[in-house]
Amino acid sequence: MTKYSGQKHFLIAVDCIIFGFDGYDIKLLLIQRGFEPEKNKWSLMGGFLQSGESLEYAANRVLKQLTGLEGVYLEQLQTFSKPLRDPVERTISTAYFALIDIHQYEKQLSHDYHAEWFLLKKRPLLIFDHEEMVKLAQKQLRYKAALHPILFELLPDKFTIPQLQSLYQGIYNTKFDNRNFSRKVLSTELLIKQQEKDKANSKKGAFYYKLDKRRYKANFQAFLNFIPNPDKLLR
Amino acid sequence: MTKYSGQKHFLIAVDCIIFGFDGYDIKLLLIQRGFEPEKNKWSLMGGFLQSGESLEYAANRVLKQLTGLEGVYLEQLQTFSKPLRDPVERTISTAYFALIDIHQYEKQLSHDYHAEWFLLKKRPLLIFDHEEMVKLAQKQLRYKAALHPILFELLPDKFTIPQLQSLYQGIYNTKFDNRNFSRKVLSTELLIKQQEKDKANSKKGAFYYKLDKRRYKANFQAFLNFIPNPDKLLR
Repeated sequence: MTKYSGQKHFLIAVDCIIFGFDGYDIKLLLIQRGFEPEKNKWSLMGGFLQSGESLEYAANRVLKQLTGLEGVYLEQLQTFSKPLRDPVERTISTAYFALIDIHQYEKQLSHDYHAEWFLLKKRPLLIFDHEEMVKLAQKQLRYKAALHPILFELLPDKFTIPQLQSLYQGIYNTKFDNRNFSRKVLSTELLIKQQEKDKANSKKGAFYYKLDKRRYKANFQAFLNFIPNPDKLLR
Repeated sequence: MTKYSGQKHFLIAVDCIIFGFDGYDIKLLLIQRGFEPEKNKWSLMGGFLQSGESLEYAANRVLKQLTGLEGVYLEQLQTFSKPLRDPVERTISTAYFALIDIHQYEKQLSHDYHAEWFLLKKRPLLIFDHEEMVKLAQKQLRYKAALHPILFELLPDKFTIPQLQSLYQGIYNTKFDNRNFSRKVLSTELLIKQQEKDKANSKKGAFYYKLDKRRYKANFQAFLNFIPNPDKLLR
């Protein structure tokens, strides 16, 4: 007889929140739930933890099974545990999130489960507490965006200032003044102007920029400006 | 027959990481585990999730039962799920953490379970993956400290610059140059100098300061300086 015997056991699930950026808008990937309750309603990609899996492994498996996506870096967001969050049986769910370049994963996306991109701000009603999960993930994204001057994992190799502005506007769900935005971004001195222009989206065209990766790495610390080089101190 | 039937169920635990500041050092609260395996080894305060409890509720209950502490604001850190993390039976554990003013909670601390404060940098070996939990919580603290110029929830109403420096030195596990530290902190213009001096810790004494809470709130944004007022935009 140990302290372990007689303890209650629980169902554990994972839910994946996948934000995507297509160069203009932030979108959210959703599927139609394939089983009861709430069958056919829009849902995050979720499934149960199996024996022998870590949560990270389960999140990657579920995402692959339901959408075809693989190799996405999923970050653990938070574990949701309100006793009545699932009406059938109590389930504790750990949510994972990622923000990806939609074009880069386009070909992987399977349509077997009707995974669909929705404009983040025009998303349908979600089942259970998935709305709460999405809101917390958005908040997390906003903090990340404030700390990382350029969300460069997300941008194509070369991009325009209007594209970058769209990305930030999508994340903060607001409209920035074009001139101010451009001035602020260029003042970071992290962008290298290219010769070439994108003429697809305006007559005048917009110059392409590339990120100065060396500088970006060196200057990241500038944003954590109270303590000298905190990352150096992180073990 | 639903998708839910036949799914594996798991033990779920919570573990509490309590950092404390006594004005000079950052400490870690530990207990001696009361049951096998690893009986009498040093451990975070942990226990199993019960039916009907949310994880937050369980974390508060466990902390109260094992240390006497109540009313501590516990923040969810991360859920740990490596299949072999507990040698007796697979257990998924959600870790919570807090940083408290040791003096403020002194009277609540019960000695029934031998809860003891250890210097963070001289802590004993911990059971299971508790060392990994503590390291992740430290990393989280460092990010918080970099974003919040003063960890004011933690300081007494009036405090000296050397006390503040000790706090930051404890969190970053490093030694700052006294003069530089003082200059940087005062340049934030968030501190109001008091008439009174603390003479207990040096002959010359050190002036007490109070936090300018109004300014602190208004200036917090300055540290998230790329996006104008991100918090305003957080829904």
